[in-house]
Amino acid sequence: MLYLVRMDVTLPTDLSAAETTALLAREKAYSQELQRDGRWKEIWRIVGEYANYSVFDVTDNDELHELLSGLPLFPHMRIHVTPLATHPSHI
Amino acid sequence: MLYLVRMDVTLPTDLSAAETTALLAREKAYSQELQRDGRWKEIWRIVGEYANYSVFDVTDNDELHELLSGLPLFPHMRIHVTPLATHPSHI
Amino acid sequence: MLYLVRMDVTLPTDLSAAETTALLAREKAYSQELQRDGRWKEIWRIVGEYANYSVFDVTDNDELHELLSGLPLFPHMRIHVTPLATHPSHI
Amino acid sequence: MLYLVRMDVTLPTDLSAAETTALLAREKAYSQELQRDGRWKEIWRIVGEYANYSVFDVTDNDELHELLSGLPLFPHMRIHVTPLATHPSHI
Amino acid sequence: MLYLVRMDVTLPTDLSAAETTALLAREKAYSQELQRDGRWKEIWRIVGEYANYSVFDVTDNDELHELLSGLPLFPHMRIHVTPLATHPSHI
Amino acid sequence: MLYLVRMDVTLPTDLSAAETTALLAREKAYSQELQRDGRWKEIWRIVGEYANYSVFDVTDNDELHELLSGLPLFPHMRIHVTPLATHPSHI
Amino acid sequence: MLYLVRMDVTLPTDLSAAETTALLAREKAYSQELQRDGRWKEIWRIVGEYANYSVFDVTDNDELHELLSGLPLFPHMRIHVTPLATHPSHI
Amino acid sequence: MLYLVRMDVTLPTDLSAAETTALLAREKAYSQELQRDGRWKEIWRIVGEYANYSVFDVTDNDELHELLSGLPLFPHMRIHVTPLATHPSHI
Amino acid sequence: MLYLVRMDVTLPTDLSAAETTALLAREKAYSQELQRDGRWKEIWRIVGEYANYSVFDVTDNDELHELLSGLPLFPHMRIHVTPLATHPSHI
Amino acid sequence: MLYLVRMDVTLPTDLSAAETTALLAREKAYSQELQRDGRWKEIWRIVGEYANYSVFDVTDNDELHELLSGLPLFPHMRIHVTPLATHPSHI
Repeated sequence: MLYLVRMDVTLPTDLSAAETTALLAREKAYSQELQRDGRWKEIWRIVGEYANYSVFDVTDNDELHELLSGLPLFPHMRIHVTPLATHPSHI
Repeated sequence: MLYLVRMDVTLPTDLSAAETTALLAREKAYSQELQRDGRWKEIWRIVGEYANYSVFDVTDNDELHELLSGLPLFPHMRIHVTPLATHPSHI
Repeated sequence: MLYLVRMDVTLPTDLSAAETTALLAREKAYSQELQRDGRWKEIWRIVGEYANYSVFDVTDNDELHELLSGLPLFPHMRIHVTPLATHPSHI
Repeated sequence: MLYLVRMDVTLPTDLSAAETTALLAREKAYSQELQRDGRWKEIWRIVGEYANYSVFDVTDNDELHELLSGLPLFPHMRIHVTPLATHPSHI
Repeated sequence: MLYLVRMDVTLPTDLSAAETTALLAREKAYSQELQRDGRWKEIWRIVGEYANYSVFDVTDNDELHELLSGLPLFPHMRIHVTPLATHPSHI
Repeated sequence: MLYLVRMDVTLPTDLSAAETTALLAREKAYSQELQRDGRWKEIWRIVGEYANYSVFDVTDNDELHELLSGLPLFPHMRIHVTPLATHPSHI
Repeated sequence: MLYLVRMDVTLPTDLSAAETTALLAREKAYSQELQRDGRWKEIWRIVGEYANYSVFDVTDNDELHELLSGLPLFPHMRIHVTPLATHPSHI
Repeated sequence: MLYLVRMDVTLPTDLSAAETTALLAREKAYSQELQRDGRWKEIWRIVGEYANYSVFDVTDNDELHELLSGLPLFPHMRIHVTPLATHPSHI
Repeated sequence: MLYLVRMDVTLPTDLSAAETTALLAREKAYSQELQRDGRWKEIWRIVGEYANYSVFDVTDNDELHELLSGLPLFPHMRIHVTPLATHPSHI
Repeated sequence: MLYLVRMDVTLPTDLSAAETTALLAREKAYSQELQRDGRWKEIWRIVGEYANYSVFDVTDNDELHELLSGLPLFPHMRIHVTPLATHPSHI
C-alpha cells in the first residue's frame, strides 16, 4: 500500500560537526536499508530545500509510523503523509 | 528529469453527462499515451479527493508545461509543480 | 486500519427541494449501511458547520477511496484524510 | 459530551534524557488513568507526526480544559479542540 | 456553558429583494428570541464585515448545533465555534 | 466602545519558577483591576490553549493599546484585536 | 480616532455596463463626500489590484461600520479593519 | 525601476470561443507592445499553471498600476506586485 | 511615490536592558529624522501589537530599501511593503 | 532552462561579527562567480526584506539543487523554486 511522504529537515544547531556527520550517516544507512527491502520505494530531493518527497510501500498505517518515527532525523523533521490509492487511468 | 505534480480537479457543473463522459475519456486516453511513452512515470489517486499526485520524466520545463497545459481537464484543474533532484541517499 | 476523515459539504444551489431530499436520503442510507458493516466506525457533526469528522476502519487506502468516492455527496464535498496508527499510550 | 482534540508535541531540547523519560512516563500514566475512567475515549497517533487525535467525553468545557491543561506535556503542546455533536446519520 | 461563535454571511445573489428582506426578518426574529431566553448572550457586529461574533450559553454541544443549524441564514454562513472555559483571572 | 481581543501566551523558558510565579501574579492583579473598573468586560479561557478571548470597553484605540501593552505578559503574547460595533439584531 | 481599512472589490458579472457605471459613480460620490468632510482621510490604490488601503478618522467603531456598510460597493467588497493608535515615535 | 509581478488568470466561462480568442489576442498585442518599448522586461510562464511571472521596468507605482489595470485580462486576473531593489551582490 | 509598510518587531531576548534602551533610542531618532525630512510620512501603532503601519514617500524602490534596511531594528523586524498608486476617487 | 528562486535569509545570532562578515563575503563571491558564468542570470533585492528573487539558467533540476545547496548561506535560508517555461506572448 502506497503513501507519499514529505519530510522537511531542520538540523539542530547545538550538535558538533562530528555528531552531525554521525547522525546523517545513521539516517542514510537507515534509509538505504529500507530502500533495499523495497518499503522505501522512492526518494527525491525537493530542489533548493533540505526536504524530500518519498513513496513508501508498506502493509498498513502502523508499519509506516514505525518506520518514520524510527528515522534518526525524526526529532528534527516536519513530516506530512498522504495516503495514495490506485488511479483509474493508471496502466 | 523528474517533477512531482499535484492536480486538483473541479469539474464544471454546466456540462451534460455525455459531455463529461467524453471529456474524461479524452483525459484518460491522453494520460495513458504519455504513460506508455514513459513521460508520465507515475500517477496515484489522493485518497478521498478528486486529485492526483503524478511524477513526470521530461527533458525540461517547457516540455512539462506543454504536456500539462495540453490536458483536456487543464481548464478545470489547479496544478502545482515541484521540481525534483536526485537524493544523496538514493540507491 | 483506521483513518480520520473530515468532510465539508457545500450543497449545489441548482437542485430542486425534492432532488436535494432524495440526494440526502441516499447519502444517509449509504452511510448507515457502512456503519452497520463496521467500516464506518464513527461519525460526528462538527458543531455549527455542515461538516463531519468520521473514523473509518478498512483494509487499505484503495478501499477507503472507493467508499469515499462512492458517497452520493462526494461531488459536493471537500474531504481530507488523516491516516491513524496505534498510540503507545492507548490501553 | 464529545470533543475531538488534536495535540502536537514539541519536546524541549534542554531536558536531560532522564528528565524526558520521566516526563513521558507521567504523561502516559495521566492519559491511561483518564482512558480507564472513560473520559479519554479514544487516542490515535497521526502517522508520521509526534501528534495525536483524541476524543474526550466530559461534562462541559471547563472539565475538558482542566484535563488538557493538566497534561504533563501541556507546556510543550499545541492543542486544537473541536466540539462534536450527534450526527443525524449516526446509528 | 459558553461558546464564542463567529458567523460570516454571504447572501445568495439569486434571491429577489422581497425574499431577501423576508429571510433577514426571520433571522432577526430567530436571534432575538434566543437573546430573550438568554441562550444567545452576546452579539456584536465585526466592523466593516457582514459578520458577527456571538457568545452562546447552552447546556451542551448538541444544543448549540441545533440552534446554529436552525438559523434561517445557516445555508449562507461560514461558522466557527470556539468552546470557552472559565479564566483563572476572572472575577 | 467594544473590542474583541485574542491573546496567545508563550511563556519564556529561561525564567526561574519564582520569576514565573511573580510574573503571573502581576498579570492577574493587572487584569482584575481592569475588570473591577469595567474596562476589561469579559475574559474567557480558550479550551485547551494557553490563550484567552477578552472583551474590552474603552474610550478609543489609544486607550486600548495602552492597556494591552501594559500587560506584564505583553512581551510574551501574540495579540489580535477586532473592533466591534452594535449589531442590528441586538436587543 | 484612526483605522486602516483594506477593501478588495469583486464586481458582480451579471450587471449591465450602464448599471456598473452607475454603481461606480455612486461609490465615487460617496467616497468623495466623506473625504471632503475629513472622515475618509486617505485612499490609495494598491498597485495591480482592484483594492485600496484607506485611513478613516471617526469617533468610534459604530460610526466606522456605518460608513463602510453604507458603501454602494459594500456587498461586493472584502474589507479588513485595523485599529490604529498613536505611535511613540510619531512627531 | 523594477517590479516582479505575478498574474494568475481565471478565464470567465460565459464568453463564446470567438470572444475568448479576441480577448486573448488583445492581451497578447498589449503585452508585446509593452515588451517592445522595454517596460515589460520579462515574461515567463509558471509551469503547469495559467499564470506568469513578469518583470516591469517603469518610472513609478502609478505607471505600473496604469499598465496592469489596462490589461485586457485585468478583470480576470489575480495580481501580486513585489517591488525590487538593486541587490548588493549584483554585478 | 508612496508605499505602505508594515513592520512587526520581535526584540531579541539576549540583550541587556541598557542595550535594549539604546537600540530603541537609536530607532526613534532614525525614524524621527526621516519624519522631519518628509520621507517617513506617517507612522501608526497597530493596536495591541508590537508593530506599526507606516507610509513612506520616496523617489524609488532602492531608496525605500536603503531606508528600511538602515533601521536599527531591521534585524529584528518582519517587514512587508505594498506599493501604492493614486486612487481614481482621491480628491 | 529557467527557474525563479526566492531566498529568505535568517542569519544565526550566535556568530561573531567577524564570522558573519566572512560568511557574507563567501556568499557574495559564490553568487558573483555564478553570475559571471551566466547561470545566475538575475538577482534582485525584495524591498524591505532580507530576501531576494533570482533567476537561474541551468541545464536541469539537479544542477540547480547543487548550486543552491552549495550557497554558504544555504543552512540559514528558506528557498522556494518555481520552474519557468517560455510564455506564448514573449517576443
